[in-house]
Amino acid sequence: MKIVLLGSGNVATHLASALKTAGEEIVQVFSPSLINAKLLAEKVNAEPVDDLSKINKLADLYIISVKDDAIAKVAGSLKTIDGLVVHTSGTTDINVLSSILKNAGVFYPLQTFSKSKVVNFAVIPLCLEATDAKHLEILKVLARKISHKVYEMGGEKRKVLHLAAVFACNFTNHLYSLANQILIANDLDFDIIRPLIAETADKILIDLPENVQTGPAVRSDESTIEKHLTMLADLPELQEIYQTLSSSIKLSHK
Amino acid sequence: MKIVLLGSGNVATHLASALKTAGEEIVQVFSPSLINAKLLAEKVNAEPVDDLSKINKLADLYIISVKDDAIAKVAGSLKTIDGLVVHTSGTTDINVLSSILKNAGVFYPLQTFSKSKVVNFAVIPLCLEATDAKHLEILKVLARKISHKVYEMGGEKRKVLHLAAVFACNFTNHLYSLANQILIANDLDFDIIRPLIAETADKILIDLPENVQTGPAVRSDESTIEKHLTMLADLPELQEIYQTLSSSIKLSHK
Repeated sequence: MKIVLLGSGNVATHLASALKTAGEEIVQVFSPSLINAKLLAEKVNAEPVDDLSKINKLADLYIISVKDDAIAKVAGSLKTIDGLVVHTSGTTDINVLSSILKNAGVFYPLQTFSKSKVVNFAVIPLCLEATDAKHLEILKVLARKISHKVYEMGGEKRKVLHLAAVFACNFTNHLYSLANQILIANDLDFDIIRPLIAETADKILIDLPENVQTGPAVRSDESTIEKHLTMLADLPELQEIYQTLSSSIKLSHK
Repeated sequence: MKIVLLGSGNVATHLASALKTAGEEIVQVFSPSLINAKLLAEKVNAEPVDDLSKINKLADLYIISVKDDAIAKVAGSLKTIDGLVVHTSGTTDINVLSSILKNAGVFYPLQTFSKSKVVNFAVIPLCLEATDAKHLEILKVLARKISHKVYEMGGEKRKVLHLAAVFACNFTNHLYSLANQILIANDLDFDIIRPLIAETADKILIDLPENVQTGPAVRSDESTIEKHLTMLADLPELQEIYQTLSSSIKLSHK
């Protein structure tokens, strides 16, 4: 399968490596920044391109992996193409592609990617959608080469999944960051809290989070909650978050 | 070392096992519920006790591992004791013990415990405090038998650590739970999001969370944020949390 990758960000980078490792041929990598295109293209032995008019017209699959608000523009440059065009976004409707292209689909990996960190693609859920059964099957065959977790999923459910991911991943990471802010302000190192974070995530791999909630709020330990709010008096933003989440925990467990 | 354990909850249970495994002798387990005292005492070959007046007066160490607001009451029953008395709380001042007991200390394990889940005590930070150097040394020697991460730490820092832990662990787990609430409402299984949670925690084991923040808020992707808030229209509590945390992410990364 000849694949053109449009994008050079975190998702594009990890997806390119996984596809290359699975034996697929990445013919081109496009980025408006030639430096970024080259950086990724070199890794997967592809041609770097920084001009949408130079995109190879004869590939089998075009993967658009750019910021959500840039997908339509990139797709617009692929109007004359016969191959299948997919995006990798959790929130963007398939119609953004299918309204202007012959063959469209979605190839959404539910994971958080950072360029510096290697991920095991085999366990990443891949959520697939396509405008017809034939192309859905093509995507499934490809997806199964790089992951054990392949889901066929319409746009509405995919968007719900993306929303849930914001809570479980983006907001969670920010809470780690706020914890670090509290530690730094008191000359404590983030390292001391890493085992706790690891165990918190580890627990829900074998149980549901609502079954293993701990802490002052779930115990309705108002005395500790009051002490903590007092400690956060100089950090009103963290105080508000503490109050909002504690109320929510109490509400969920009452 | 002869140890009396006062408490039979999650912390007491895991600590008892770790101490027993390290070759320490748990002579008694106290709980106001005899059933609970027996349950834990049997595991570590100790005598179960449900009456504070029957506590063995000749042990070397008394570990009070009960709810914060019950520590003072339990400590009050140990006034005539010569041995060292410690509590395992992150928030309670050592004075609650030292004001009424001869030899007092703190033995705080920074971890989240659930009875059903085995933990590796060796990586759990143990934060120690004592009223004098001799007893601090006794606690250090004991702590190093069960963990590689032993910290001497005053009450103020310990309380800060506990507060940071609420953000990094308790609130985080609740966000997993809210994600599940969103998934359940749309017939999606929590299993699909587990790899994402594992990777989110895994990333910060080798980096700081502020360096690996992803998601719509850090990208200032207002279009996606608006879509998500609309999707949460029927869940005003989650909508508020979404807004509060997104604002906080933007503020931290601007």
